Amino acid sequence: MYSFLNDYSEGAHPQVLEALIQSNQEQTVGYGNDDYCQKAKEVILKRINQPSADVHFLVGGTQANLVVISHALRDYQGVIASDEGHINVHETAAVEGTGHKVITKPHQEGKVTVEMIKQILAQHPDEHMVQPKMVYISQTTELGTYYTKQELEDIHAFTKENGLYLFLDGARLGSALVLDDAPSLADIAKNVDVFYIGGTKMGAMFGEAIVILNDELKENFRYQLKHKGAMLAKGRLLGIQFYTLLKDHLYEDIGRHENQMADYIREAFKAKGYPLYLPSKTNQVFVDLPLDVLAQIEEHYLVTHIQPLDNQQMRVRLVTSWATPKVEVEKFVEFIKQL
Amino acid sequence: MYSFLNDYSEGAHPQVLEALIQSNQEQTVGYGNDDYCQKAKEVILKRINQPSADVHFLVGGTQANLVVISHALRDYQGVIASDEGHINVHETAAVEGTGHKVITKPHQEGKVTVEMIKQILAQHPDEHMVQPKMVYISQTTELGTYYTKQELEDIHAFTKENGLYLFLDGARLGSALVLDDAPSLADIAKNVDVFYIGGTKMGAMFGEAIVILNDELKENFRYQLKHKGAMLAKGRLLGIQFYTLLKDHLYEDIGRHENQMADYIREAFKAKGYPLYLPSKTNQVFVDLPLDVLAQIEEHYLVTHIQPLDNQQMRVRLVTSWATPKVEVEKFVEFIKQL
Amino acid sequence: MYSFLNDYSEGAHPQVLEALIQSNQEQTVGYGNDDYCQKAKEVILKRINQPSADVHFLVGGTQANLVVISHALRDYQGVIASDEGHINVHETAAVEGTGHKVITKPHQEGKVTVEMIKQILAQHPDEHMVQPKMVYISQTTELGTYYTKQELEDIHAFTKENGLYLFLDGARLGSALVLDDAPSLADIAKNVDVFYIGGTKMGAMFGEAIVILNDELKENFRYQLKHKGAMLAKGRLLGIQFYTLLKDHLYEDIGRHENQMADYIREAFKAKGYPLYLPSKTNQVFVDLPLDVLAQIEEHYLVTHIQPLDNQQMRVRLVTSWATPKVEVEKFVEFIKQL
Amino acid sequence: MYSFLNDYSEGAHPQVLEALIQSNQEQTVGYGNDDYCQKAKEVILKRINQPSADVHFLVGGTQANLVVISHALRDYQGVIASDEGHINVHETAAVEGTGHKVITKPHQEGKVTVEMIKQILAQHPDEHMVQPKMVYISQTTELGTYYTKQELEDIHAFTKENGLYLFLDGARLGSALVLDDAPSLADIAKNVDVFYIGGTKMGAMFGEAIVILNDELKENFRYQLKHKGAMLAKGRLLGIQFYTLLKDHLYEDIGRHENQMADYIREAFKAKGYPLYLPSKTNQVFVDLPLDVLAQIEEHYLVTHIQPLDNQQMRVRLVTSWATPKVEVEKFVEFIKQL
Repeated sequence: MYSFLNDYSEGAHPQVLEALIQSNQEQTVGYGNDDYCQKAKEVILKRINQPSADVHFLVGGTQANLVVISHALRDYQGVIASDEGHINVHETAAVEGTGHKVITKPHQEGKVTVEMIKQILAQHPDEHMVQPKMVYISQTTELGTYYTKQELEDIHAFTKENGLYLFLDGARLGSALVLDDAPSLADIAKNVDVFYIGGTKMGAMFGEAIVILNDELKENFRYQLKHKGAMLAKGRLLGIQFYTLLKDHLYEDIGRHENQMADYIREAFKAKGYPLYLPSKTNQVFVDLPLDVLAQIEEHYLVTHIQPLDNQQMRVRLVTSWATPKVEVEKFVEFIKQL
Repeated sequence: MYSFLNDYSEGAHPQVLEALIQSNQEQTVGYGNDDYCQKAKEVILKRINQPSADVHFLVGGTQANLVVISHALRDYQGVIASDEGHINVHETAAVEGTGHKVITKPHQEGKVTVEMIKQILAQHPDEHMVQPKMVYISQTTELGTYYTKQELEDIHAFTKENGLYLFLDGARLGSALVLDDAPSLADIAKNVDVFYIGGTKMGAMFGEAIVILNDELKENFRYQLKHKGAMLAKGRLLGIQFYTLLKDHLYEDIGRHENQMADYIREAFKAKGYPLYLPSKTNQVFVDLPLDVLAQIEEHYLVTHIQPLDNQQMRVRLVTSWATPKVEVEKFVEFIKQL
Repeated sequence: MYSFLNDYSEGAHPQVLEALIQSNQEQTVGYGNDDYCQKAKEVILKRINQPSADVHFLVGGTQANLVVISHALRDYQGVIASDEGHINVHETAAVEGTGHKVITKPHQEGKVTVEMIKQILAQHPDEHMVQPKMVYISQTTELGTYYTKQELEDIHAFTKENGLYLFLDGARLGSALVLDDAPSLADIAKNVDVFYIGGTKMGAMFGEAIVILNDELKENFRYQLKHKGAMLAKGRLLGIQFYTLLKDHLYEDIGRHENQMADYIREAFKAKGYPLYLPSKTNQVFVDLPLDVLAQIEEHYLVTHIQPLDNQQMRVRLVTSWATPKVEVEKFVEFIKQL
Repeated sequence: MYSFLNDYSEGAHPQVLEALIQSNQEQTVGYGNDDYCQKAKEVILKRINQPSADVHFLVGGTQANLVVISHALRDYQGVIASDEGHINVHETAAVEGTGHKVITKPHQEGKVTVEMIKQILAQHPDEHMVQPKMVYISQTTELGTYYTKQELEDIHAFTKENGLYLFLDGARLGSALVLDDAPSLADIAKNVDVFYIGGTKMGAMFGEAIVILNDELKENFRYQLKHKGAMLAKGRLLGIQFYTLLKDHLYEDIGRHENQMADYIREAFKAKGYPLYLPSKTNQVFVDLPLDVLAQIEEHYLVTHIQPLDNQQMRVRLVTSWATPKVEVEKFVEFIKQL
């Protein structure tokens, strides 16, 4: 059985693993104050072209979301997300666990829009309601779509005007970075208050790199990390990995590879007439399959069931990654063809 | 200007006030361990016909909701409500402030339905999502509707089967108690795990009486009260008021009066052809008024704007209470007639 | 049995009760936006001589403490108190319930000292420890002592230098206000960032008036109140009471009365040679009594056991209040004499 | 400069690293549901001789503490620890951040005693105080001491009698496991409600293995993990490491090695007449050094300053680990000799 379940089925990209092996016996100080973390930060600052940004590393995505959001908000403030936002659906109320409401509207192709934010602000006029203070978006979204540079700029302009923080969850950022009309790392850094560069789903063994642009959010962030149990003792493990991923564009190479693998799969489904759900160019493929076709696929492949549809169909998801071998995808494409 | 803004515009019902005056100089022990609280509890147990229920008193509704919900839930559990539920909209995320997600679906005439709960359960299958554990309903609802005895029994049967607690917020309970097909106090006690009898909006100076039926929710409730800052030093103030309201059906008399006052107002609007929003027999009147009519009304009366509608109309709310004099309502009805 | 258990054994001071009766049928808007609250605020601002302070009212002391402290602190910050501080001992971890550590050192005559704060700061140098950000003191203290004007100024100077907020819990403030070397209301307002004027233990039926001096703590305080379930629907009840207590120095008259009653009792114990615990001039009397003497007293009076001592003695507490009749104290003094 | 700062200065033990390398390209399901985690659990269950225990893996110690403690306690409950307990001092109030008070007494040689717990229970009689519900101990302690089997059994007997949970933090468990009178893994499992086997400081790249013995604490633990951001996407990384550490007693070998290295250092200090602080046989060495001696050492070695003492002395800490080469220790011992 080959698994298309997700982009964290394997360990680490060979280059990342090699860097961990090479540095294994070195002594460093703990908690992210080591030279590897320093080097990784420098590479990030250079790539985002924002020398005064702060960079912090931690282990996972839910952790990153809860730390950033609780750090930015006061007790009575909430965060705006789409109803499909990862923080709203797939994190066991980790954000609410820190005391903050996730305020939602139905997504537009997986995305938050200016109009949604505007409506939410209008519905929260006074102190009897939670105060919306941050907007949470993901690049790429849970549904495989992405924000164009223009869309990001529009949301940023609106949030800035309205005193809201904009936070971009980049768990799968590499998949979007290599798309033509998507914002670059530097574009993102110019248009958000805080974001993170995902590692776990992008070739790292684990890890996310939080980048803070807005000075208001910088103060005492290390206290918040430790307070939430999110400061790794051997912090250098994170520095080593992000330095490796970002120093020579390995990160983008991974994004390009996984998108290409996903494109092959999309083409194969399209050729057979199985409808794709939402226009997507990223590493997640959503397709509506007849149940009998799905059964045949599942004799050899693992895929995720998203939702049963009418007419004996199931919406399923397939995910590619740095670890998806081209040869496996070619086999899969052949398999689809002959169905 | 006469105010129809809400049912807490005045102080306390004269009988309640008198009881506070009479007892003012007596010495009692603090924190609800006094004889007045004891007597109030006995009256409640008798009226609900559940001798082993626990009764606790506290000051306000948001407090009651956050104390009960946080007491019932473990960290990773959430509470189901309609999108119009008071805890979802009007409590500045007080429930989320205790760490718990409010899980919502759009209301059905202001109410939660078995179908809504069923859908939510289906969408929360595993540990990557918050675990739904309680259902929150209000009698009467935020929109002036109410659960019939049958509806309450149906929801109760479903929650019990599915291991969910059922919690009824009775901030305006008196208004529903006197309606024919609505559940009585004893019916409610048989069909929920915990509920409260509202005082603040029902003639008390302040106060809500929490009644716990399910043994699992009884343990250490006083610790929870104190922990949340909700244990009143002079607890006897609450005992005195609830004893007065409940010993001789003053509570129901108040409900009957306020419903009747509201009925007069509803009739007046209907007679003029202004459409009422949702079928209502309780003390909240929702009506859609042309803007020019509203302007005339607001020269003499205070009402709440709910929502601008199309066609130069505004949905407004008028609320009656124990303190609404019949003569004021008659004047208002005359005023409407001549518009 | 006459009770010296505490200063909240009765209802409200007759003048306060009368004001509630007089205003009972008036209609006001809710949540503290009414004219009574406005008038009470104006009286307070005038008496503290700080026209730009913010004033908010809520029901009880634990509530006041948890709202103020959680409003002032970020997630990873803690509050310094003495080990006998009310927030450390008698509030069922309400402050920790909002996520904040109470950092303590052993008290000095019930008080926090500059030296204690200095030591705590030295022990919390970096992000692996909670960040001390606020100092909590009570006037009067749990042990009946009080801060002199000089002591308050010293603590204030130190906290200001070190970027700490100073918060004064004035649950029994009236008892200290009338002492010669204690700070006045205006002195307090000049030397703290936030404090509250206690009502519950000072003649109000219930209520505490929070006064915010530091601009950093003013923003969105009403959101915090509502978020914590601490915003009273009938806010005017609080305004009426504080206006009555403060407009003509009734508050100080109560303090003077209760201290005088306590002085009589202290004299009686001293005359019999029973040692008082800590020098006290306020409304709490701590005395070490032989067990047989205590037994005789407890045939007629309720007192609080604080701690068993060696030599068959018990440390007990007696509390006087606005409601303690002089004639009862005289009877008690006679009773002590003849023991 | 050679560092004796701590036991997490290097990466992973070579055998652990090798296991990560070998498994790197395999596909597994996420979140700890893979075969490696299954195998690691089986090894642990066998070694503790408790087939029905639950085992969960997560990344770090502060995370383990906050997840276990918040899972075990209800809102109004607190955890007992010594004043030197890691949760009280070195975790930036992470436990309080989940809403729970850490209740402390001064340590006895770094340890909690039955007498301390007894006193705390006596001081927390009712609902006006936090309810103590769990006792937290560390094996080894922060000060390098350890609980004997007898001491652990005594504490367990007392906690069981008094309805308290006993939780053992085993961040440095391996160092104690190999001492004669210390409890074995099976002894620990018989005498606590929950504990964890530390990996981060014991040769793993990262990770702690939580073992739950008490059925009351088992339910929904995976929900709690995810809710607190503590469920690792690539869970298999944890399974692989713990399987490697525990399948053939590598874990104990590491403990034995680090203790032996520390013994050499202790002998060297003793021989020179520098007093050791507290009797210790584990991998932490606490020694009081004259400042001029310390200065000489710090030209070549990194050590931790614990506390300045009188008489121009400093208490310092040196830590050994799996990675401490015997040859480095021998060089250090020679260096000490010639001082």
